[in-house]
Amino acid sequence: MEEIIGTLAGIFTTIAAVPQILKAWKTKKVDDVSPKMFLVLTIGVSLWTVYGFMKQDSPIIITNGISTLLNITMLVLILNYRKKKF
Amino acid sequence: MEEIIGTLAGIFTTIAAVPQILKAWKTKKVDDVSPKMFLVLTIGVSLWTVYGFMKQDSPIIITNGISTLLNITMLVLILNYRKKKF
Repeated sequence: MEEIIGTLAGIFTTIAAVPQILKAWKTKKVDDVSPKMFLVLTIGVSLWTVYGFMKQDSPIIITNGISTLLNITMLVLILNYRKKKF
Repeated sequence: MEEIIGTLAGIFTTIAAVPQILKAWKTKKVDDVSPKMFLVLTIGVSLWTVYGFMKQDSPIIITNGISTLLNITMLVLILNYRKKKF
């Protein structure tokens, strides 16, 4: 039971950025999105990935590795589509 | 060293929503923000909190409990400020 809850939790938190990426990609508008949120998230999940490597823990490495890539993708979209500078 | 990296990672991923909440609060605009992202995130961090209780793991409960409250706050702001329905 704990394993099911943990796996579901991991899937949800890992894929959460996908709808935001698709929305930004389709609308090409990111004015209301906080670049700082995605910068802080990217730093956070990168550190979790490093932590996973230190602990040699595959689930931590895989979920946070995917999150890092997704959050970097969103940061790139923000940099491309934003009207004003940070 | 692992503990420092893990703690920093936890702080960053926990507080990431704060700049987005402040931005939405100040501008009262959320059109470009994905409600689905915050819905999926809220479900994910809630499940992590449940997982923390099952494992009796305080750091998991505290960080994900704070995240749940922050993401619910952002969902409420989205529901209040959005122009069109989901």
